Amino acid sequence: MPNPTAAMLVIGDEILSGRTRDANMHHLAGELTKVGIDLKEVRVVSDDPTAIVAAVNALRSAFDHLFTSGGIGPTHDDITADCIAAAFGVENGVRDDARAVLQAHYDREGIELNAARLRMARIPEGAALIDNPVSAAPGFTLGNVHVMAGVPRIFAAMLAGLLPSLQGGAPVISQTLRIERAEGEIAGPLGAMAAAHPALSFGSYPYQRDGRFGANVVIRGQDGDAVAAAARDLVAALGGVPV
Amino acid sequence: MPNPTAAMLVIGDEILSGRTRDANMHHLAGELTKVGIDLKEVRVVSDDPTAIVAAVNALRSAFDHLFTSGGIGPTHDDITADCIAAAFGVENGVRDDARAVLQAHYDREGIELNAARLRMARIPEGAALIDNPVSAAPGFTLGNVHVMAGVPRIFAAMLAGLLPSLQGGAPVISQTLRIERAEGEIAGPLGAMAAAHPALSFGSYPYQRDGRFGANVVIRGQDGDAVAAAARDLVAALGGVPV
Repeated sequence: MPNPTAAMLVIGDEILSGRTRDANMHHLAGELTKVGIDLKEVRVVSDDPTAIVAAVNALRSAFDHLFTSGGIGPTHDDITADCIAAAFGVENGVRDDARAVLQAHYDREGIELNAARLRMARIPEGAALIDNPVSAAPGFTLGNVHVMAGVPRIFAAMLAGLLPSLQGGAPVISQTLRIERAEGEIAGPLGAMAAAHPALSFGSYPYQRDGRFGANVVIRGQDGDAVAAAARDLVAALGGVPV
Repeated sequence: MPNPTAAMLVIGDEILSGRTRDANMHHLAGELTKVGIDLKEVRVVSDDPTAIVAAVNALRSAFDHLFTSGGIGPTHDDITADCIAAAFGVENGVRDDARAVLQAHYDREGIELNAARLRMARIPEGAALIDNPVSAAPGFTLGNVHVMAGVPRIFAAMLAGLLPSLQGGAPVISQTLRIERAEGEIAGPLGAMAAAHPALSFGSYPYQRDGRFGANVVIRGQDGDAVAAAARDLVAALGGVPV
């Protein structure tokens, strides 16, 4: 059975302006690989409702899961919950369970749950809350869309709580070989080997170090024995050191 | 006149598997902001021809420019040129000008221009070459699509050569204020200020440092005087330190 598929939607002007370097994509990619969910596409869009709604609807219908990051804080530019509600055609409003989570948190901190903070209790109709152990304001899952914060530490904490509830597949096994020869030297035999092993993927990632060219060749597949056998064949044919 | 718009397409399984952290998106975002081209969307897709062709056609028709990274090396998984040709419905084959660039480079290095390396001279019909001062194998521009390498040093070098040939717009001026108050405290006044200045954008990026909450507020716009005036108003209303 093929693994479940996923896409990610990163929401935020700050990534597209170059102000902030996104960290959540790389984290999500690694975590999904571990549990056997195949990340197939990532999109980054600005804080524009039309763009967000269009991307949400395209990605949630094309893949088994959609993970979003960003835009669920208390300020005027935090519009993700509204856009998710619009994409699903449901209402978005303050919900008692989310308000209670925030109220308890701010009571503990001695901080007022003001109108801005209450925005973070606005949850689209029908969604289930995602726990935020860092700063309380919850994410949520609506259908196959998982809405999480953009702050990397909060994103990671929400994801850690969410992932065990999702059905994973077969984790992908990979073996990397560092081959100290230029890609142009190894491309022929490598292509022939890839053609001979259609169940495995062979990626070649060139590097240049101290003026010398080399390539990291990554063999990936769900059958660990097949990956190991292909790695042995590759070493016999081209040299290379497991890394 | 509004600035030209752009999208980016990052091609490569290694990003989506979490093996490699993309660096080109952040670099492109910063460089485009400097020259007044507005990066509106980024997509990351795997080494899958159907996904690449669909993304190329969607993005090149929606934006003034499309920049791609990855998949133009000599190995079997380098399929970007084929996909661009397919997206435009033109032929892809070894071209004399690209072959001459490679031949001269490999002659200098005393390396054979073998069949794998010759793959890098395959350029879609009608494209103009983009110079690669690092390792010779060229990128290319076809229509409004600029195809560049995935290796960050080569991507940056190609982009540096390409950008002066593109028509830019008004660079975006930005001013960042660090406000040592929680986002929930400043969200109300900040939202009111954003509503009062529709020509500017006000982004709020929360942080937590040494257990204290704060926010970096970024004011952006094409009119430097208006940005500066809004920054002064914001400091008067909420405090904050220019950073």
